[in-house]
Amino acid sequence: MASSYQTTRRVEFCETDMAGIVHFSNFYRWMEQAEHAFFRSLGLTIVNHQPDGTTFGWPRVFAQCRFESPACYEDLIQVLLTVQRIGVKSLTYDVVFSIGDRIVARGSMKTVCCVVRPGQPLQSIEIPDEYTSKLHEYSASTDVRIQ
Amino acid sequence: MASSYQTTRRVEFCETDMAGIVHFSNFYRWMEQAEHAFFRSLGLTIVNHQPDGTTFGWPRVFAQCRFESPACYEDLIQVLLTVQRIGVKSLTYDVVFSIGDRIVARGSMKTVCCVVRPGQPLQSIEIPDEYTSKLHEYSASTDVRIQ
Amino acid sequence: MASSYQTTRRVEFCETDMAGIVHFSNFYRWMEQAEHAFFRSLGLTIVNHQPDGTTFGWPRVFAQCRFESPACYEDLIQVLLTVQRIGVKSLTYDVVFSIGDRIVARGSMKTVCCVVRPGQPLQSIEIPDEYTSKLHEYSASTDVRIQ
Amino acid sequence: MASSYQTTRRVEFCETDMAGIVHFSNFYRWMEQAEHAFFRSLGLTIVNHQPDGTTFGWPRVFAQCRFESPACYEDLIQVLLTVQRIGVKSLTYDVVFSIGDRIVARGSMKTVCCVVRPGQPLQSIEIPDEYTSKLHEYSASTDVRIQ
Repeated sequence: MASSYQTTRRVEFCETDMAGIVHFSNFYRWMEQAEHAFFRSLGLTIVNHQPDGTTFGWPRVFAQCRFESPACYEDLIQVLLTVQRIGVKSLTYDVVFSIGDRIVARGSMKTVCCVVRPGQPLQSIEIPDEYTSKLHEYSASTDVRIQ
Repeated sequence: MASSYQTTRRVEFCETDMAGIVHFSNFYRWMEQAEHAFFRSLGLTIVNHQPDGTTFGWPRVFAQCRFESPACYEDLIQVLLTVQRIGVKSLTYDVVFSIGDRIVARGSMKTVCCVVRPGQPLQSIEIPDEYTSKLHEYSASTDVRIQ
Repeated sequence: MASSYQTTRRVEFCETDMAGIVHFSNFYRWMEQAEHAFFRSLGLTIVNHQPDGTTFGWPRVFAQCRFESPACYEDLIQVLLTVQRIGVKSLTYDVVFSIGDRIVARGSMKTVCCVVRPGQPLQSIEIPDEYTSKLHEYSASTDVRIQ
Repeated sequence: MASSYQTTRRVEFCETDMAGIVHFSNFYRWMEQAEHAFFRSLGLTIVNHQPDGTTFGWPRVFAQCRFESPACYEDLIQVLLTVQRIGVKSLTYDVVFSIGDRIVARGSMKTVCCVVRPGQPLQSIEIPDEYTSKLHEYSASTDVRIQ
């Protein structure tokens, strides 16, 4: 029972390359930005400083994107993020980028909840209850939120 | 009979994020940069202005990356690019990123040879003979080139 | 009689660096993005393909920025762009970045109207009438537009 | 008695924009990368984790660049960094970018040595002796180091 979050993004000049289209690396940033906007819409933040001095975050462990048609300067891109899976330690999303009725790209991304300590390896942890409860509550709703 | 091209890249400060590690979007850029360095090593260039005024290039149609361990500021990353498939119109690569013996990430990328005309849709074309002959010649060699 | 255009921008995760603050290079992009949003608000576009096949654009000839206080992930930054001078071939802007009452950075930027032909040097031209008339009309208004 | 450090950098595809030239924001990154390479050449690093848990770094307080001629994909750019001033808390650099005999851009940048604590304001400190002694020693030498 997947639920979706939609945002839009206008293509900036600095996101184009000499072929006259959006450089493909930007789509991975846009996937992440959609995830973060989705978290904000739930009253959550992706970077969480705990009172005891630890921080947890959500590094990506996998991201892919298939490019179906080009996007150009000033195009207004709809970004539709769907939570495909809420795991014990990870979240998996699908993302569809489109301009009007035309699909531009389709991506997916998996992130893992981790404790981040400067100078130490990332360590995966169970997603805190505050997050899973809001994510499940959101998933139970059936409509697409439009920002 | 895959053949490989190796280059290295030092992590820049601006490629890190507030989690203290390389932002994942940079790996897609590094895959592309390795492809372009590989082309240069063959005496080829990825952006080709033809005498008749047309230009052809190699937009990506797919790229994925799996992140296995973090990379940090000033780390020296080995990038090993392997041509997995030389198609009629497309090239497929695997890329392994490592720091010493530690694997950092594994990616793959498919690019399609296209005619690029400003303001017009991209149109795929057969890879020019000059390119395929050098790519096949390279693939027939068995050793890894180190830059 | 300067006039100003205001927009806002939320700091993205990928714009931070390992010091935990916005990487300084982003402010130059944000200056440009504010200029382009300002152009759009006037019904103009910064990249103009003419019917005769030529294109003109606005490359930067100078940009500076002074950084007064840090900006962090998810901060909402107000960007106030003021047209300081409408020259024959160039435009000069001042830009102030702030978060609430706190100044984050102050920049300025000069752009020159140029004909852009692939593979040829940039050539400066007089700003087309359509642009100067709208820019002067805008400057004559005294209020700050809020987007 | 200024001394200079020289490095080179090949323009990457993702650094170009739809005008077919390097996007101006990259020059600020290149200034920083030249500074960091210069530090490495002295056996220093720009990000320093102290045993007592504090970190100090060098945020930029000012950076400007004047763009004199365009740089394009695959151009090999010489970056000449000159330490103009070694202050008590700050360093000031001039940077000249050129392709062969042609000047591409001239920039300058001022950085301040700061203690960086997550979630706290940056606090400027005197440049540690280890750094000033190596910087002064370097400045006393008269030749340009080529990397």
